[in-house]
Amino acid sequence: MYELHFAVPMAGAILCTLNSRLDAAMVSVLLEHSQAKILFVDYQLLEIAQGALNLLRERGTELPIIVLLTDSEYSSTIDITSTSYEYEKLVDVGHNDFNIVRPRSEWDPISVNYTSGTTSSPKGVVYSHRGAYLNSLAAVLVSQMDLFPVYLWIVPLFHCNGWCLPWGVAAQFGTNICVRKVSPKNIFDDIIQHKVTHMGGAPTVLNMIVNSALTYRKPLKNKVVVMTGGSPPPSQILFKMEEIGFSVSHLYGLTETYGPGAFCAWRPEWDMLPPQERSKMKSRQGVPHVGMEEMDVKDPATMESVVADGKSVGEVMFRGNTVMSGYYRDLKATKEAFKDGWFHSGDLAVKHCDGYIEVKDRLKDVIVSGGENISSIEVETVLYSHPAVLEAAVVARPDDLWGETPCAFLKLKQGFHTNSQEIIHFCRDHLPRYMAPKTVIFIDLPKTSTGKIHKLVLREKAKALGSL
Amino acid sequence: MYELHFAVPMAGAILCTLNSRLDAAMVSVLLEHSQAKILFVDYQLLEIAQGALNLLRERGTELPIIVLLTDSEYSSTIDITSTSYEYEKLVDVGHNDFNIVRPRSEWDPISVNYTSGTTSSPKGVVYSHRGAYLNSLAAVLVSQMDLFPVYLWIVPLFHCNGWCLPWGVAAQFGTNICVRKVSPKNIFDDIIQHKVTHMGGAPTVLNMIVNSALTYRKPLKNKVVVMTGGSPPPSQILFKMEEIGFSVSHLYGLTETYGPGAFCAWRPEWDMLPPQERSKMKSRQGVPHVGMEEMDVKDPATMESVVADGKSVGEVMFRGNTVMSGYYRDLKATKEAFKDGWFHSGDLAVKHCDGYIEVKDRLKDVIVSGGENISSIEVETVLYSHPAVLEAAVVARPDDLWGETPCAFLKLKQGFHTNSQEIIHFCRDHLPRYMAPKTVIFIDLPKTSTGKIHKLVLREKAKALGSL
Repeated sequence: MYELHFAVPMAGAILCTLNSRLDAAMVSVLLEHSQAKILFVDYQLLEIAQGALNLLRERGTELPIIVLLTDSEYSSTIDITSTSYEYEKLVDVGHNDFNIVRPRSEWDPISVNYTSGTTSSPKGVVYSHRGAYLNSLAAVLVSQMDLFPVYLWIVPLFHCNGWCLPWGVAAQFGTNICVRKVSPKNIFDDIIQHKVTHMGGAPTVLNMIVNSALTYRKPLKNKVVVMTGGSPPPSQILFKMEEIGFSVSHLYGLTETYGPGAFCAWRPEWDMLPPQERSKMKSRQGVPHVGMEEMDVKDPATMESVVADGKSVGEVMFRGNTVMSGYYRDLKATKEAFKDGWFHSGDLAVKHCDGYIEVKDRLKDVIVSGGENISSIEVETVLYSHPAVLEAAVVARPDDLWGETPCAFLKLKQGFHTNSQEIIHFCRDHLPRYMAPKTVIFIDLPKTSTGKIHKLVLREKAKALGSL
Repeated sequence: MYELHFAVPMAGAILCTLNSRLDAAMVSVLLEHSQAKILFVDYQLLEIAQGALNLLRERGTELPIIVLLTDSEYSSTIDITSTSYEYEKLVDVGHNDFNIVRPRSEWDPISVNYTSGTTSSPKGVVYSHRGAYLNSLAAVLVSQMDLFPVYLWIVPLFHCNGWCLPWGVAAQFGTNICVRKVSPKNIFDDIIQHKVTHMGGAPTVLNMIVNSALTYRKPLKNKVVVMTGGSPPPSQILFKMEEIGFSVSHLYGLTETYGPGAFCAWRPEWDMLPPQERSKMKSRQGVPHVGMEEMDVKDPATMESVVADGKSVGEVMFRGNTVMSGYYRDLKATKEAFKDGWFHSGDLAVKHCDGYIEVKDRLKDVIVSGGENISSIEVETVLYSHPAVLEAAVVARPDDLWGETPCAFLKLKQGFHTNSQEIIHFCRDHLPRYMAPKTVIFIDLPKTSTGKIHKLVLREKAKALGSL
């Protein structure tokens, strides 16, 4: 995947990385929507790929060429008769004098990143060469990455092209450490063995590190910078990470902003604050990085900036080179996202008097589980398709390991009966496993005065449940 | 000057910084050529400015508005009747609600930097907003400047807009330390008092530091990165700097490349090399930075890249966003500089097998004195204007303090008599003082087979003289 981040654009083609947790149905939809011509498949995901190809075949869609990637652990007992090429063999027959196909315009697309895939509305976020270049430099700068960094890949490359760091690490002459499996033992082993200087990871990964068995831990010989995002690092985890020897940077952004669009630039004077205050400062989403032209908190109705008082709430909006070109083949969603000339993040925030922003809530009720964004609406759509369900609402339940897990509140149709396990299994049959609710509660759903389901009340109920 | 690097572009105007060592005649020429509308003058340079204005008045040229800058040492006995405004008073009446005038295009000019000023051929290097933005980020990256740096200004802001670091330091939330006078004592005092993390300086400044009286020196509490360029740092100076606690980075570029276009990216494994080898590595001009698209060493006749063997000599050429837009009001020189689609640096170099370049000689015989570029041709033009001079050639003489000083070789016309002192005074009357030769030698000039003056022989003679 790292090599392909160079090979594909240099061949004049467009990258479209797919989430490795997707099921065959979703993969088939995204292959079709992206009009992919070549599918590179790791051997561990071959079965899903083959399932997706079967679905495409059934629909009469043209199939992409398959290139299989293997490694030393690859067992040839896997059936690869349906694959066209093996990656390493393909590389072997490449030409040394191949001329790089440069983009005709710097605005040409370099990649498409799908934010969340449902059969109804996959959204392909288009990145340009220009944006990816500038975000690479910005990501290096916000990571405080000196020359010759050693970067441990934990953030998947299918997440905003790894925040554009495949290119950023290369620009800094860096070394990339790629691992098949992320575990506390592996993380510590890799850091020591390869002299890792930087890594990224969702709060879940931080959680995994601080809660790891002491036998796995090794004393860090140098400071390791960990970039985290998705949700602010909880204070306890933050302090424990720093005790172990990590330096945690809090980044903020969306797929539509090439990953991090802002960061909590840590002011040296904040080192002196008492722990609780420091944690409060660190949880801010901060200021835009140098690749982003503008980030603001605005009233979406009037497009006026909110007062920088730490209280007035508005929607976080971005504009600049490191905002997506648009959603692939979805002009309607693109126009909506760029209403009034700004990209609407869907996140609600306040602006502090020093200009740092702090996200307070999500407009779209996204659930962030293990670093993956789960749209509550997508899960609800599946729940609504269950014969017994009358009303459904999904919100986040706090979780020590995953950060959050989906929690479903359901009202059943009169005369119908089911139970939590049956609902969970139903969801697992129709969604990627990680998107299925882990908790199901049957109640009369609270409503707002206008008759809508009162999600705020449900969020509070889910919060009160505590971690699973 | 630092404030104006923001105020002028934000007013929709174009910066044109003038070398503070220029004389009134040169300033008048550059004011006329640049068509400057406002002249900001430090009170210490007011006399030169007034002299320049008088010359403009004599020529019937429209005069710019004058804005006087003062400081606490300013004595009001200086005649400022001819000035229109005082800077601080002007700032006081500014409007808080002033709307920034953004460039219509990112290719719009942000500044003009004059490379060397003679009445015959001032060359105004035009920088664009786009190039300055990218070079700011690149300068931060090659300087390994983390967030919240403290930058000591020794490189003048009239040199390539301080390598674009006024903007780069701001982008990293940095602190700027500006000083009136550069001396070893001041440098050490400022570093300690302000916790300086980064500074730039010509090899002359490094020389000044390592040869400073021990009483001025103070132990450095943290590593101070010093970026140097113009000519490679001599090994002895390099090692002494590192002993004192500085980390020296070798940068390479020209005014036409926004300052540094390349840098000797220091590979960690080079730390293990014996001192002489390390010094050899450090003296390389290196590799292009991430803002520069391409740097290559080419045969200017065929435009073929030289073989990367460390021996084959060619001309260093650049292309990319951080190459100037062109020379202001000089299409002929612009076309010449960009012949065949690459900017021709005029420097001769080899390329090593690892891709690092090493400059071997200068096509144009530029003399680098105290960080200032002196064109030998400009000095020769003045010498040729002396009634007694038949032939003149100016080359660099090595100098412990200045790096190099101009050394003139002259053949007098038959029947004419003069002496070194008279020639030096003549040059000082017609050139900025620093450009006047410090050494004058009367000989029959050696010639090449094609009848041209054999500068290589003269350079060797000047070298053999040793330091003044």
